[in-house]
Amino acid sequence: MGQGLRAAIDFLLYEWLRVQALTTRARYADHSRETFDAVLDTCERIAREKYAPFNRLVDTEEPRFDGEKVILPAATHEAWKAYAESGMLSAAQDYDVGGMQLPYTIEAAGNAFFAAASVSIGAGMLTVGNANLLMAHGTPAQRRAFALPELAGRFSGTMCLSEPQAGSSLSDITTRAVPDGDGYEADPLGPRYRLRGNKMWISAGEHELTDNIVHLVLAKIPGPDGRLPPGVKGISLFIVPKRLVDAEGRLTGQRNDVALAGLNHKCGWRGTTNTLLNFGEGRYPVTGAAFGSGLDGRGAGAIGYRVGAPGEGLRYMFHMMNEARIGVGMAATMLGMAGYRASLDYARTRTQGRPIGPAGKDPAQPPVPIIQHADVKRMLLAQKAYCEGALALQLYCARLVDEQRTGDTAAADEARLLLEVLTPIAKSWPSEWCLEANSLAIQVHGGYGYTRDFPVEQYWRDNRLNMIHEGTHGIQALDLLGRKVLMEQGRGLALLGARIAATVAQAREEPALAAHAQALADAWDAVLAATRAAWADGDPTAALANAVPYMQAFGHTVIAWMWLDVARVAARGDGPAHRGRLQACRYFFHYELPRIEPWLRVVRTRDLTCAEMPDEAF
Amino acid sequence: MGQGLRAAIDFLLYEWLRVQALTTRARYADHSRETFDAVLDTCERIAREKYAPFNRLVDTEEPRFDGEKVILPAATHEAWKAYAESGMLSAAQDYDVGGMQLPYTIEAAGNAFFAAASVSIGAGMLTVGNANLLMAHGTPAQRRAFALPELAGRFSGTMCLSEPQAGSSLSDITTRAVPDGDGYEADPLGPRYRLRGNKMWISAGEHELTDNIVHLVLAKIPGPDGRLPPGVKGISLFIVPKRLVDAEGRLTGQRNDVALAGLNHKCGWRGTTNTLLNFGEGRYPVTGAAFGSGLDGRGAGAIGYRVGAPGEGLRYMFHMMNEARIGVGMAATMLGMAGYRASLDYARTRTQGRPIGPAGKDPAQPPVPIIQHADVKRMLLAQKAYCEGALALQLYCARLVDEQRTGDTAAADEARLLLEVLTPIAKSWPSEWCLEANSLAIQVHGGYGYTRDFPVEQYWRDNRLNMIHEGTHGIQALDLLGRKVLMEQGRGLALLGARIAATVAQAREEPALAAHAQALADAWDAVLAATRAAWADGDPTAALANAVPYMQAFGHTVIAWMWLDVARVAARGDGPAHRGRLQACRYFFHYELPRIEPWLRVVRTRDLTCAEMPDEAF
Repeated sequence: MGQGLRAAIDFLLYEWLRVQALTTRARYADHSRETFDAVLDTCERIAREKYAPFNRLVDTEEPRFDGEKVILPAATHEAWKAYAESGMLSAAQDYDVGGMQLPYTIEAAGNAFFAAASVSIGAGMLTVGNANLLMAHGTPAQRRAFALPELAGRFSGTMCLSEPQAGSSLSDITTRAVPDGDGYEADPLGPRYRLRGNKMWISAGEHELTDNIVHLVLAKIPGPDGRLPPGVKGISLFIVPKRLVDAEGRLTGQRNDVALAGLNHKCGWRGTTNTLLNFGEGRYPVTGAAFGSGLDGRGAGAIGYRVGAPGEGLRYMFHMMNEARIGVGMAATMLGMAGYRASLDYARTRTQGRPIGPAGKDPAQPPVPIIQHADVKRMLLAQKAYCEGALALQLYCARLVDEQRTGDTAAADEARLLLEVLTPIAKSWPSEWCLEANSLAIQVHGGYGYTRDFPVEQYWRDNRLNMIHEGTHGIQALDLLGRKVLMEQGRGLALLGARIAATVAQAREEPALAAHAQALADAWDAVLAATRAAWADGDPTAALANAVPYMQAFGHTVIAWMWLDVARVAARGDGPAHRGRLQACRYFFHYELPRIEPWLRVVRTRDLTCAEMPDEAF
Repeated sequence: MGQGLRAAIDFLLYEWLRVQALTTRARYADHSRETFDAVLDTCERIAREKYAPFNRLVDTEEPRFDGEKVILPAATHEAWKAYAESGMLSAAQDYDVGGMQLPYTIEAAGNAFFAAASVSIGAGMLTVGNANLLMAHGTPAQRRAFALPELAGRFSGTMCLSEPQAGSSLSDITTRAVPDGDGYEADPLGPRYRLRGNKMWISAGEHELTDNIVHLVLAKIPGPDGRLPPGVKGISLFIVPKRLVDAEGRLTGQRNDVALAGLNHKCGWRGTTNTLLNFGEGRYPVTGAAFGSGLDGRGAGAIGYRVGAPGEGLRYMFHMMNEARIGVGMAATMLGMAGYRASLDYARTRTQGRPIGPAGKDPAQPPVPIIQHADVKRMLLAQKAYCEGALALQLYCARLVDEQRTGDTAAADEARLLLEVLTPIAKSWPSEWCLEANSLAIQVHGGYGYTRDFPVEQYWRDNRLNMIHEGTHGIQALDLLGRKVLMEQGRGLALLGARIAATVAQAREEPALAAHAQALADAWDAVLAATRAAWADGDPTAALANAVPYMQAFGHTVIAWMWLDVARVAARGDGPAHRGRLQACRYFFHYELPRIEPWLRVVRTRDLTCAEMPDEAF
């Protein structure tokens, strides 16, 4: 049918977002539609050859620890190698550090193929995010010693935020970083500290895929009284390599005191090791002697190099965190797309039953492909609407990143602020609704979908992680309603409203879309009214009691906007693919957007039914 | 807190349904609240000792076939033994066949504990359903040889409907049953046939838990031209034992030609073997010689004894199927309850973060149990509302079964008809919403919930089966809107409406419930209006295009009714448990019932967005 994932991406990139126009900008002047296509071709091919065939394998052969090393399947090593050799790790970097200066939108689209093929076999996303953070906030030496080897695929990266006792509550972390001797500030790799603490849920925290692992670790520097500063303002950021390096990033042969304390055994997403790491427990003691004159061996612990200023750690980490959140949204979207395509193929080939017709079912007629049954079509169209709608949002956000990087001052600032507002949606909405899509993909398969002989049950298990990691649904909702819609006096919300209004105005001109345009305008008004009502008296307890339903309604409205804007373009073309987009848009407006009213109602009325439930009454 | 599963069941049984009143009926005259409690105590104890400790074990040690036998963990054998010895297999049977003449409501409540403890370790439900079918439709010899050994726990039972090529479309089954020689009608165990065919998705289809397995098999008897009759009217029902028996149910030593062709490897529910069975493939050939004078060895195939009249097989099977559907609903409900209780325990003991307050979060304060966070309360209250609401419906349906069995003619007929209408809801609603509850239970646990160190991810995987087996969601929806609400000129729908109206009238008297009463009355009117609009011109294509959204709205309305009726009783008491019920009711009316409007809207408008989507546009 020619409407696989690639066709969906091509349409969104070139017909809808018109990313080829980016090539008029100086940074991308060497690029063209042809170079973009070549990148996508390469990603599609590697994903097909090195990722997809091993997706079930990495589910059944979980990472295991032999006491010394974490063992991963050979296929995982091959996949990493192919990915690193493709150049995708440094695709968006400057030419002078070996990058391709590719627009972020194309990088994101290329990475989508890997997520669809095997979401958990790769660890590229965190490595690139880690390197990007260091390129933005590290010293030239830190970039050279850590970020460049990551971008070359020699090192990989992690983000170490959570601790077993603290979870999402970062103000409560207790990992401690103390200056490593009197000369601690003189280390060429940055102010040198000794870290002690435990970090939980660290993806790719231990493995042998790369020569080294660059942990970016949040920790607190004790005050003069030896106590850790309270709150998130006391958090600093440190580079803690698994193996110590010299100023050029060469391994010194000395292991740092970062020890694997346990592997988490997960419901899905099993291709990626997920670890509990102990920093400075003494399993790999590092004495001062190995490090030259500035070191005196005091303060046992893992060696860490501070990034930037003390107390600014969380702000720097959000550089990486926001990328990771959008990455999670894309992963969720691609798992949804993979299930959609699998169930579509199944529905086209599996024959069973006969359509309901005025004449009733005639058992003398042969069975039909199940795609002819109305309820199967409903389940497929819902998946298409969820997943292609989510994909549009992901690519729209990626395009905003490019605007932030290469637009003029006003456009870049607008893009930055829109991204602030849209990030919680880009992360949460696909996590919830592309998971629902995966459940529908199972349902289309019937009993077969519940067996491990078909891929869809794994997509569903893998996708369940996405509402949890990199900030749970609840955290995203507090971020949206408690912070993002208020920031800069609501300017981000107003900017989003202006963009929605622009789509509404254009869609009103299309007779087939005018009713949808009105529905979207009404929905946005309802979201704004609920936002105002929630904060009517400024009491955050009442305002935020229904933050998740608010986020659900906000998200459905944003995806309705995406679909209307996509349909506006599709309405100008013809052919089955455009017909399908118009139908998915109609599905979203008829079946999905009306769901926002029950969600907004509890926000608007500041319903405290849940908040007031006494513990003992459960 | 004293509000575990047992407390929830006790309240519903004795304070809400007042099942102790059943003891005034002749059949239950020997019973009392004390005998009921003793049964529940026993079930709770066995479930705690023999089921719950092994729930993870049966997930990791899947059934495997060694070429001859299916190997199950020793714990599964122990669980079956304890269950059989408890007498629960024959709890509801007459005294004269060894039963307890227990009300079905108490039997169902007792079985709930096993489902909550380990849903997949047991195979009791199908065995009882199988025996009940034979007690109702079998000959005295068939009852003696097959049903009584099942009720005693010596044999177990299956239902064999689906075939690999036919799935839900039973009219397309091709399993063939031919009379076994001239004397086929003279066999003491019933008219004897030879069966050949393949049956898919057969739970407990092969194992060594019992001396024998009684397969109840749907097959078609070829006509004089050798062709199978088309449609479901050509289906007959056969008893096909794994091992052949004499007229007293004693094993003859001869294996029947039923061969395991494969084990299905499932996403969850792994404690139960699920099989593809080949009937009559010749692996265990049965010649005539072993069977006395009436046999001549013609017609290779598995020996099967016809139940009742030819062509009536599906009607008989629905005796078992309806029980199985309610059993699925109860299993889904109990998986939901298990997750609710686990996440409640976790939320009460896990400390993290601080409540949002007007003063803002103060990091100098210690972290609080996460149950104090509004969004965690929301996720717990949603689970309570889903699962205890579903439990109320399950027990209400069970009470209707007792009415059907022991009420006067009019009451029994009314109960039968109400059960017809409510069965698709009792099966589908918990399958969908108690699965959602399990997802919330994972979310309450954060990352820990996604690991296999906590039970909730398994509940979620186990529960995903329930929307598929014993009739998919789509099949239930067609049954509801295409058949049940229309049957007997809509009399079932009217009866349900009258019961809802009675609850509404009573609840209006309670000031705290009056608004909910009005909301329920409005919701029911909306369901009726949508039903009429769907069938406005009698065209089933348009009427049934949105059967699933219709069923979702119908289900939410039924559960709202359950909650209002429960709240009516809770409002007369006090204490935290009653407070919790009133709050869960309020949650359901504020957060859930308003969802019906978007579902009903597409039914009422006979929206064909999905039905008209062309295949090539996906």
